[in-house]
Amino acid sequence: MKNYIENTVNKSNFFKLLHSSKEGNYNLRIGIIQNSLGSKLITPAFIPVATNASIRALDSLKLKDLEINGIFVNTYHMHVHPGEDIIQELGKLHKFMNYDGIIFTDSGGFQAFSLGQAIEHGVGKIVSIFSKEGKKRNNNIEKLAEITDDYIIFKSHLDGKIIKLSPEKSIDIQIKLGSDILMVLDECTSPLASYEYTKKSMERSMRWALRSLEFFKKNNKGNQYLYGIIQGGHHYDLRIKSTEFISSLPFDGIAIGGSLGTSKENIKEILSWVMNYIPENLPRHLLGIGSLNEIFTAIENGIDTFDCVIPTRYARTGTVFTNSYPFIKDITAKYYNQIETKKYNKPIDENCNCYTCRNYTVAYLNHLFFVGEIAAMTLLTIHNLYFYSNLLKNIREAILQNRYLKFKEQFFKKTS
Amino acid sequence: MKNYIENTVNKSNFFKLLHSSKEGNYNLRIGIIQNSLGSKLITPAFIPVATNASIRALDSLKLKDLEINGIFVNTYHMHVHPGEDIIQELGKLHKFMNYDGIIFTDSGGFQAFSLGQAIEHGVGKIVSIFSKEGKKRNNNIEKLAEITDDYIIFKSHLDGKIIKLSPEKSIDIQIKLGSDILMVLDECTSPLASYEYTKKSMERSMRWALRSLEFFKKNNKGNQYLYGIIQGGHHYDLRIKSTEFISSLPFDGIAIGGSLGTSKENIKEILSWVMNYIPENLPRHLLGIGSLNEIFTAIENGIDTFDCVIPTRYARTGTVFTNSYPFIKDITAKYYNQIETKKYNKPIDENCNCYTCRNYTVAYLNHLFFVGEIAAMTLLTIHNLYFYSNLLKNIREAILQNRYLKFKEQFFKKTS
Repeated sequence: MKNYIENTVNKSNFFKLLHSSKEGNYNLRIGIIQNSLGSKLITPAFIPVATNASIRALDSLKLKDLEINGIFVNTYHMHVHPGEDIIQELGKLHKFMNYDGIIFTDSGGFQAFSLGQAIEHGVGKIVSIFSKEGKKRNNNIEKLAEITDDYIIFKSHLDGKIIKLSPEKSIDIQIKLGSDILMVLDECTSPLASYEYTKKSMERSMRWALRSLEFFKKNNKGNQYLYGIIQGGHHYDLRIKSTEFISSLPFDGIAIGGSLGTSKENIKEILSWVMNYIPENLPRHLLGIGSLNEIFTAIENGIDTFDCVIPTRYARTGTVFTNSYPFIKDITAKYYNQIETKKYNKPIDENCNCYTCRNYTVAYLNHLFFVGEIAAMTLLTIHNLYFYSNLLKNIREAILQNRYLKFKEQFFKKTS
Repeated sequence: MKNYIENTVNKSNFFKLLHSSKEGNYNLRIGIIQNSLGSKLITPAFIPVATNASIRALDSLKLKDLEINGIFVNTYHMHVHPGEDIIQELGKLHKFMNYDGIIFTDSGGFQAFSLGQAIEHGVGKIVSIFSKEGKKRNNNIEKLAEITDDYIIFKSHLDGKIIKLSPEKSIDIQIKLGSDILMVLDECTSPLASYEYTKKSMERSMRWALRSLEFFKKNNKGNQYLYGIIQGGHHYDLRIKSTEFISSLPFDGIAIGGSLGTSKENIKEILSWVMNYIPENLPRHLLGIGSLNEIFTAIENGIDTFDCVIPTRYARTGTVFTNSYPFIKDITAKYYNQIETKKYNKPIDENCNCYTCRNYTVAYLNHLFFVGEIAAMTLLTIHNLYFYSNLLKNIREAILQNRYLKFKEQFFKKTS
């Protein structure tokens, strides 16, 4: 097995802006994030979610084949199992999961939302993704998180144990996990929260950001990097206040979190408010974003990284990405009849060079899904992650060659 | 994708006996089975089960990495979904699943047992494997198969549709699937069946073998091979009668099926009865066999191939094979406590060279199982299939070098 001895990276080498340019109204940039193991992540980059230190249905070595050099692990889940002390004893996350790419951890704050208000309000990514199929997974689920001014109280989804997550505790866990990029504890507010609640929550998140930072400064060994998180919902004054506060503190990077409103236009608007206040030299992460439209919007506003479960979760329900409108295709549809069969005797995308498209047909993948074979999920996860990885590579190339606008136009022209 | 144009193999090249030797009382042999795509399977070989044209939790290309050159697909399942006509239109099984190794198909006769009498009698592999955990999966399940003198009547496990499987229909399906090795339709009797029932069933299986052969001779194109199946339960006179009958017909190979009794000693006894009556030049397959003890017994009696779900099914429940007593280890056990943690920061088997052992620790695999990550099943399936593949390779090497007895002794010496 690989030797995960850490070489401390010069702090100034953690993030470097390699290129920045303007096309139309867009501020575009190319950067590089490096970790102490020598891995390099070229940005803008999509960061898939490995909730339990595993991309669902995929082993970690496959990520390198897919040129995925950054992943996003959930601190709350790692705390619940196997626990940060065990991970630390086993040599920290990179060694534990055999992955030397850039590991982001969140703070657990998102779970305060997804296991708390999201359930109460019947909203959140899980609900919205599944609602297209009329499945509301969060209905009738007990709320498992409450927020106080000092900490989030969770009831473990695994064993019901009570967990108190303070800013200090969250950073302590993340330090022990050994992720490269840590997030301050915050609350991700619901899009249905009132102005008053969002304001109160944001002020608390600001206090928590400061406490997170203070604990981090005292306890980190120099090869981990802490991001502050901007909150404030879809309210201009709150976003500006939060941005100014977070940007004034010595964070290694800035994340934008919380409710980004209820439509694509909201995301654009919120990014246009906050991006001017964020120092140019800091890496910027947009939390929980990943539809194709959102990715382009993020990049056009100078976002460097963004994480999302979309490509992997879609894969497990049989939905694959393609290069032409509507960009997704349901592989589980009942394709078979004697007239149509041969039409599906070809890959998902004949121009795709992924492992799945090079080796398997839609007909076979459809069959595997129909009979419930696990390999189907793995093969579709590979395809979707390749699609995202390849799209981002093409976008970076276009930015460097100052032809981003053309690339985007061509990409969406396939719409018709 | 690969070009699956079939080159017709000279019939005499389908099976070749390369070596035979005697050590102690054992008749050992090495052979080679070739298909029309040029793939070679060196025997004795373990043939994993790919029920739905997919080894569970593994994509077909991984089989080549594991040097697995033969698999066993279930005809009944392929008929139910997607159907043999569709498979034929898509270019037959090898192309459909992108696997050019030797594909065996059964006849559907085993499902007459597993979906019929096995449910009625509360026996069968599924029951016995799970009974170690006290789980009797077949309890309260409706019987889905009945046998008449002309055909098996199934109620499809997928949609309840009635399926009538006659000997001719079974061969017709298998010809359309394009498997390399086909089996005659038979009934696999329950170990709890009476002498009278077993006799009646065996006589019917003999008539069905003849009808299967006649249909095959008329309809096959020359690049598929048909095995007769010996039945007769654990009754000497029935086994001999069945063996003489099957061996007198022009089959391309001989399979031994049905109930092999209720203990390991029974298998030895039954094989000692029948093997002398089977022509030396024909390949012999032992149906549904695959525990470590059974494998050694089969090989010692001149069996060339045997199929079983054990390594793959064990993998999915978290049980892995190792090279020392008790040869299996439960990876899902609760290992974690602060004293024990480091003990599991190493591979399943430090001497194992499989992908899983080269890259992942027991601690990580245990975690993946605990939190329900799919990658765990894939990684353990790889390990278990590698273990079987490697064991068989070592056995073949030992046979060729006339040191099988020594090899076996050393293998089981690790028992203490």
